[in-house]
Amino acid sequence: MRKQLETVRESHPLIQNITNYVTVNDCANILLACGASPIMSDYVGEAEEIAAICAGLNINMGTLNPDTVATMLAAGRKCNEIGHPVVLDPVGVGASKWRTDSARLLLNEIQFSVIRGNISEIKTLAMGSGTTKGVDADEADAVTEENLDEVIALAKALAESTGSVIAISGATDIVADTEKAYVIRNGHAMMSRVTGTGCMLSAMTAAYVAANQATPLEAAAAATIAMGLCGEIAYERMTEQDGNSSYRNYLIDAIYRLDGETLEGGANYEIR
Amino acid sequence: MRKQLETVRESHPLIQNITNYVTVNDCANILLACGASPIMSDYVGEAEEIAAICAGLNINMGTLNPDTVATMLAAGRKCNEIGHPVVLDPVGVGASKWRTDSARLLLNEIQFSVIRGNISEIKTLAMGSGTTKGVDADEADAVTEENLDEVIALAKALAESTGSVIAISGATDIVADTEKAYVIRNGHAMMSRVTGTGCMLSAMTAAYVAANQATPLEAAAAATIAMGLCGEIAYERMTEQDGNSSYRNYLIDAIYRLDGETLEGGANYEIR
Amino acid sequence: MRKQLETVRESHPLIQNITNYVTVNDCANILLACGASPIMSDYVGEAEEIAAICAGLNINMGTLNPDTVATMLAAGRKCNEIGHPVVLDPVGVGASKWRTDSARLLLNEIQFSVIRGNISEIKTLAMGSGTTKGVDADEADAVTEENLDEVIALAKALAESTGSVIAISGATDIVADTEKAYVIRNGHAMMSRVTGTGCMLSAMTAAYVAANQATPLEAAAAATIAMGLCGEIAYERMTEQDGNSSYRNYLIDAIYRLDGETLEGGANYEIR
Repeated sequence: MRKQLETVRESHPLIQNITNYVTVNDCANILLACGASPIMSDYVGEAEEIAAICAGLNINMGTLNPDTVATMLAAGRKCNEIGHPVVLDPVGVGASKWRTDSARLLLNEIQFSVIRGNISEIKTLAMGSGTTKGVDADEADAVTEENLDEVIALAKALAESTGSVIAISGATDIVADTEKAYVIRNGHAMMSRVTGTGCMLSAMTAAYVAANQATPLEAAAAATIAMGLCGEIAYERMTEQDGNSSYRNYLIDAIYRLDGETLEGGANYEIR
Repeated sequence: MRKQLETVRESHPLIQNITNYVTVNDCANILLACGASPIMSDYVGEAEEIAAICAGLNINMGTLNPDTVATMLAAGRKCNEIGHPVVLDPVGVGASKWRTDSARLLLNEIQFSVIRGNISEIKTLAMGSGTTKGVDADEADAVTEENLDEVIALAKALAESTGSVIAISGATDIVADTEKAYVIRNGHAMMSRVTGTGCMLSAMTAAYVAANQATPLEAAAAATIAMGLCGEIAYERMTEQDGNSSYRNYLIDAIYRLDGETLEGGANYEIR
Repeated sequence: MRKQLETVRESHPLIQNITNYVTVNDCANILLACGASPIMSDYVGEAEEIAAICAGLNINMGTLNPDTVATMLAAGRKCNEIGHPVVLDPVGVGASKWRTDSARLLLNEIQFSVIRGNISEIKTLAMGSGTTKGVDADEADAVTEENLDEVIALAKALAESTGSVIAISGATDIVADTEKAYVIRNGHAMMSRVTGTGCMLSAMTAAYVAANQATPLEAAAAATIAMGLCGEIAYERMTEQDGNSSYRNYLIDAIYRLDGETLEGGANYEIR
């Protein structure tokens, strides 16, 4: 874990983001907080050139439209061609036919290093179903101790069929490749009361994977643990007057302050 | 008032927002703060499906363009068809011919539950005139004790002609249907020094009306009082070093912390 | 310096911004913080009417696309016609051929009062080269005591060929017209860890120049000094738990609190 974090801070990877306009500012600031640098251009006419000067690409489907899909395809193919890692955040997949079709198109055309979403989004990708309602996971899909083995199997199967590391975020996070799953119990419920914690994690995952290309599973797990641990640290900082807006600031601040030692000391996970 | 707030916290309405990219993040966070959930997609190709899974729609004309107008029309018509409430925030109407024409088109094609704007925007809608200069109300239009009766009459007349609750925000807020007007004296001048307090109120109004469909007037009034009261609470929290950026955080934090008892205790309004 | 700041606070200039969606909220809030008002519309169909009701225009190339280029051209030409100042922030110029071509198009078609960028962006405009990598200046381009005279000469030459005041932001800032250069040593390295400090400065520069049309060089220098000084004030306010997100709030807060006396007392510059 420690090594993955420190490599980001040392190499300052430049990360291309084709993302939504809701949380784009938070994504830029979390990338700066973790030691990376952001570029947010979303015009297809420069997507390949931008891909070439960056170290990795973060594709986020939040406020998707046909123009941004074209940009995602151009940048993603270029990254595949030159060997740069690409992360997919399939925000809200399942909420509309067009959104689901667009996710399939992206999966068919681009080889992703990591796919990160909530359980409803990942189930939709894996099984063509799921109960996505907007941007939050549906309660019916929640990962529990009872269905944990089943969800791990689903993640490993999707890792197999896509060739990607699968990161499922929730109260319990699962980050898996075909053989190994990190079951991560860091995090805090307060994270779901702020818009963009998932988007920020995807952006940061792109930075971690870009800086640690040989170990994408460990890099994605380290990013997930870092975000969850900082969610805990941010919560401890809250006063009686603070709400979700101050919490958002504290969360990004905590990522800014996080060092490898704190990450290793606070990491709460098992491997299955 | 108390009931309206608590219903939002209990039912967690999912609110579709077709809004501007300036304040979209604040709108998402204020919806989370008040107990609702946000969706911000603005692509016409999924607008009707998103409308169907949400409980209400917030249409904000801030950074309007022909694409978003098309999305607003599709989502608004769908909501009318299935009985979901729709809120209109006619940001900057009167600032350009095209913006005024677009507002008329929306009013002709969609039945709104609530129309919320500043006095210049509402006058433009009501009288085809007004002195909108950008996103702030013009001083010449300001609501004073002297012209209060006149403004209430204007609000009730616009409520009559549109079939909507009319919410006018300013130093004194007026929320009226055809027969009854809430004259609200909560709020703080500091709110005008932050971008998006009006946009946030419109988003929150959509949540309140969606969760309280039988009482749109009371729901809109409760949202306006909640925002004004939290503007006061946020101001009290300011230190000598704080400015408008910290104030924005405190405002959203205060909405996050607000309970029904505080709302009723702090509400400052009369009915006319 | 003092006069320039106070004129903004007294005249409340309304500033049109055609800008990127990453930092648009921060730009709106910094304009409110310094005493101006923001409009962020980016649709070409109303660009000229909006230009006519504003006092100045800020063009920021951050998340540029062909639609926003059209809006920039329409608004910029209108401002030239009616004598309103226009500021250009050539974000990321040099990062793609299309971006560089777009910057040239804007420079050919619009007379800018001020061009503000980092050293890599300004070098790209001046020399057709430079080593722009995304949104940050390249280290190879950094302004040092050794190359300071050379950079001042470059700024004055670009001022000559464009007829604009040239503002170069970095550890040392240079603000120059053809004859005179302010070499400014305010600021803090922490400013580069927040997204949008450059964008915010460009927006504020538009407000300062709009309110001080007779003295664009002094206005641009005052805006740069104000931002740098507030970067120092914001840093002093940081606690052991604060990171770049709280720092962003403190920076905008400091601009909100800044008065003419503090600006003159804290200004750290020489004229060459």
